[in-house]
This record gives sequence, structure tokens and C-alpha cells, in this order.
Amino acid sequence: MNEIESSLPQVRGPADHSVREQIVLAAGEHFSRYGYDKTTVSDLAKAIGFSKAYIYKFFDSKQAIGEAICAATLDTVVAAVDEALAGASTPTEKLRILFKTLVTTSVSLFFNDRKLYDIAANSAGEGWPSAIAYGQRIRQTLVEIIREGRQAGEFERKTPLDETVHVIYLVMHPYVNPLLLQHNLDLVDDAPTQLSNLVLRSLAP
Amino acid sequence: MNEIESSLPQVRGPADHSVREQIVLAAGEHFSRYGYDKTTVSDLAKAIGFSKAYIYKFFDSKQAIGEAICAATLDTVVAAVDEALAGASTPTEKLRILFKTLVTTSVSLFFNDRKLYDIAANSAGEGWPSAIAYGQRIRQTLVEIIREGRQAGEFERKTPLDETVHVIYLVMHPYVNPLLLQHNLDLVDDAPTQLSNLVLRSLAP
Repeated sequence: MNEIESSLPQVRGPADHSVREQIVLAAGEHFSRYGYDKTTVSDLAKAIGFSKAYIYKFFDSKQAIGEAICAATLDTVVAAVDEALAGASTPTEKLRILFKTLVTTSVSLFFNDRKLYDIAANSAGEGWPSAIAYGQRIRQTLVEIIREGRQAGEFERKTPLDETVHVIYLVMHPYVNPLLLQHNLDLVDDAPTQLSNLVLRSLAP
Repeated sequence: MNEIESSLPQVRGPADHSVREQIVLAAGEHFSRYGYDKTTVSDLAKAIGFSKAYIYKFFDSKQAIGEAICAATLDTVVAAVDEALAGASTPTEKLRILFKTLVTTSVSLFFNDRKLYDIAANSAGEGWPSAIAYGQRIRQTLVEIIREGRQAGEFERKTPLDETVHVIYLVMHPYVNPLLLQHNLDLVDDAPTQLSNLVLRSLAP
């Protein structure tokens, strides 16, 4: 597995860690209370007690702050996936665990703790770099699992690898993308297992 | 194939066809302009030039009018599917055509002509009888295709029929349900073919 790719946005000005973190933390709370869309950088400055100009020393836009929150959240999902996969032995088991862990972690982060949903939805809807990097990371994990399964003789090798990976990603997409996931919450208990079964039948050599 | 099941809501009072149609037509236009959620039966009555009491002779609620519009729309999708399937020969071809026709007809009805989306979304989100009947009709069509494919030896028979049908429906669901479809419009050109390929690989005997 690759190392977790950092999907943090470009940093502007002094990289003073504690001030950046303070802004991100306060912004996260402000967004969760008033919504990402309805908050301006001026609102944030007022709420944190910094000047707008000072915030702009660290982030070049509201989106950059949202990106920082989003990237950290998506890194949490990736870390949960990596941890769960470390305990799996076969490619078949890895595929099931990948799907299940993605869904349970996403549901828990975006919906049980509703405050991150708003930012995640913006990120997914507008194709933020953090969301794109996350999608690429999941695809890369899929590539590794499928390749391993083909080498082990567990999965068929006739279909081009790219096609196999892309279509499995399409199957997972409605349960990973928060904009779609919000309409699928009544399915999340059973669908990952049922869809994993379908995908595994399609991968039979 | 079954006859198209009528999913019209319960009719109250005189079943005077032309007045009912007049109300449904005017309501459709009113909803499309002002939105389903924001329209009341009083608004409709005013716009059509009928009394509220007169409208209630034909429909017992705003939802009943929405149901009538929705049921007619969904019947259009089912009719398009039936027509397309009539030209298909093998179960494999039928499965591809079912998926493709569902998506293209839904996109055209709900999005190219945006005015029906609002009602369709309410119908899907709140589980109206018309939406439930529609889902059952699609599943029934799937049952018939899978059963035919199993009998012809084109599809595997190990997986319980119910499970096979349910999971294929799950794969189609994000491209059929308008609430999900709105976030998948950039995928509708290729996803039905790619996902049909996956499903057909999973059905290989």
C-alpha cells in the first residue's frame, strides 16, 4: 500500500502550525453551526477574534480552510481502511473489508457526527482537490487488491484491469460519496455485503 | 411481461375524467413554476380558477395530485422499457436494454425537462405508492429476465433468484432514483454499459 497521500491545499504565508490549526478548528465549529455555504471569511475572522487579513496570511480563501478540514477527514477514512486491511489475508476478504470500512467510516463521520457533512458535500459536489485525491487513493487500493487477486488466481484476468477497477469503484461510489450516501442511509447495513457478493461473482476466474 | 400496473392514487368523489385531467395539467404547470413543496391546494385552486372545495371533490390532498402526475410519468418510463424490450432477443440483451432505457428515459423526463424532477424527487424521497409500485415493476421485469436467462442456460443458477434480482436492482438504483440520479448525470453516458458488463460477468454460469 502507498503511504497516505497528503491532500492538503497549498499553504500560503507563514506555516505556523498552531495558528493554522486554531483557524481550522474554529472554522470547523463555525461551519458546523452556521453551515459552510452561509459562512464568509469575515464571519470566521469575527468569530475567532483575528483580522480577516491575518487569516488570509494562512489560507487564501474559505475553500482553502474547508479543504484543510476535508483533507483531514478523508485522511481519517483512509487510515481506517488501511488499518482494517492490515488484518485481512486474502484479496477476496480485502475487497469485502474495503467496501464495508469505507461505508461505516463515512456514515459515522458524515452523518452520525453531522457537522462534517456540509463540507464533505461541498467537496464532493465541486470536485475539490482533497475529494479527487481521495477518489484516486481508493482506486489505487482497489488496483492493488485486484492485482493481488489476479496473481493469486482468485480473480479472472480477461477483463482489462482498468475496466475492472473503474466499475467496482462505480458500484462503491453511491455509498462513499456523501451527496449520494445521504439518500442511501437505509441501505448501508446490507448493501455493502450484497454488492461485494455481486462484485466477487463477477471476478470469479 | 405483466400489463403496466396502474399506480394511480385512490380517487375520491366523481370520476369526471376531463375535470381531473384539467386539475392535473394545471397543477403540473404550477408545480413546475413554483415548486411542489411551495405550492398549497389553495394556490392551485386560485391558479386554476376552481374553489378549493371543488378540487377536494377530485383529490383528497396535494399529494394525491402529485401522485397522479408522478404515476403518469412513471408509466411513461415503464412503457418505454416495455417497447425497448420487445425488440430484444436474448436475456443478456434484455438486461442491457433495461438498464440503458431506464436511465435515458429517466434523464430525459426528470432533467432535460426539469419540471417533473421536483415531484419525482418528493415521490422517491417520501416513498409514495406510485414510486413503490414503480420499483416493484422494475424488479418484476428483472425477475422475468433472470428467470429466462437461467432457463436458457445463459445465467448461473446457484445464487438464490431473490438475491440476484435484489442486488442488480441495487446496482441500477443510483441511476433510476431521481434523488441519486441528479448527482450521477456526468456518469449516465457510460455507467449503464459498464455496470451491465459487471452484472453480466457476475451472472456467468
